[in-house]
Amino acid sequence: MQIAILAYHRMTALDAVGPYEVLSRLPNTMVHFVAEEPGPILTDTHGFHSRFALVADARLEDVPSPDIIVIPGGSTGTMEAMQSARTIGWLRAAHPTAQWTTSVCTGAFILGAAGLLQGLQATTHWASKDYLAQVGATYVAERFVRQGTIITAAGVSAGIDMALYIAEQVGGAELAQALQLAIEYDPQPPYATGALAQCAPTVIARALQAIRSAGGMDGAGEPA
Amino acid sequence: MQIAILAYHRMTALDAVGPYEVLSRLPNTMVHFVAEEPGPILTDTHGFHSRFALVADARLEDVPSPDIIVIPGGSTGTMEAMQSARTIGWLRAAHPTAQWTTSVCTGAFILGAAGLLQGLQATTHWASKDYLAQVGATYVAERFVRQGTIITAAGVSAGIDMALYIAEQVGGAELAQALQLAIEYDPQPPYATGALAQCAPTVIARALQAIRSAGGMDGAGEPA
Repeated sequence: MQIAILAYHRMTALDAVGPYEVLSRLPNTMVHFVAEEPGPILTDTHGFHSRFALVADARLEDVPSPDIIVIPGGSTGTMEAMQSARTIGWLRAAHPTAQWTTSVCTGAFILGAAGLLQGLQATTHWASKDYLAQVGATYVAERFVRQGTIITAAGVSAGIDMALYIAEQVGGAELAQALQLAIEYDPQPPYATGALAQCAPTVIARALQAIRSAGGMDGAGEPA
Repeated sequence: MQIAILAYHRMTALDAVGPYEVLSRLPNTMVHFVAEEPGPILTDTHGFHSRFALVADARLEDVPSPDIIVIPGGSTGTMEAMQSARTIGWLRAAHPTAQWTTSVCTGAFILGAAGLLQGLQATTHWASKDYLAQVGATYVAERFVRQGTIITAAGVSAGIDMALYIAEQVGGAELAQALQLAIEYDPQPPYATGALAQCAPTVIARALQAIRSAGGMDGAGEPA
């Protein structure tokens, strides 16, 4: 099985690495990080709070027919990817034969730019939820939303939950349970502040501040 | 504040990227991925199920006095790092002035090789727990274990929980709550199989198989 995770500058690293860590442990699977140009890909905190980059190992065109597609979110780079005829063309061509076409966080807007969310329910990072209507989708405040072969996941960490669901669909419940144990995914978040509806306005305001100061996720950041 | 995440070949990507995604959003912070040689660093599924690499942006010696140290786990590379005089020397020299010296997963054994876990309680990936005694530590089956300024986290995904704890210690509860919201960390694992004690023997056996076939985490893998 071939899995393509889209990589583009100013992407959010965990959006990609969460699913990668689950899906790369499926049997007989090769995961490629695909980009317009292979090589180092800056993350959305690069130049703000890090110089961190991931390495894309393949060109988009090298992986034309992946079985699973994962589109991560990011900051300003997400908008650039939405406007790239090459990225959107690759996604449009790859989607019909993929078993699963998925997004994490604001990666939903790249699916949207390819016209794949028209008339569907979908989710994305909470800070960007109001924009889903612009790509024809209806926001649902769930961890991930499946519509046929398309799955959209909520912000950043939600890709891990989605990937375990895909693991079950691909290889059955026992395999997915084993992969959950393999990554020791017994989450114990310190607070009940992981979802927008749980949070006080002061927490929401600070979260937006943290996102923006690190250049991330809603595209509003400026380099420090 | 300066944060150093150790990078070495055959590391587990999520061990590093989970904490990075939280800690890089702390105010006035720079996160460096430090390695013996900067550049692409292979992950533990590289050559097995991926060609994925992260990029280290600094030499160990470029970041001699980080405020926070994060040591991720991995497969065979973890043992190489434990035996590297340069890596262990850097860690020993950096630890006394660090506010927090931390590990995720089998990264605990690198702390152990530096003599930092002698006589302490600690945790690590469940598949490697029996080896903690060899570095003088007593295994505790908790999400993370704090002993003074040293924190060890359980396998792979546990680094996210630990990083949110550090965020609270560094910047207070409201900041940590905001960062939990920023990464939309409202985990909804599909199964109760994230911890060893919860799992049937068949699930444990398949988890070990998945870990080994992807070259990961307990060093028992062989290239496919």
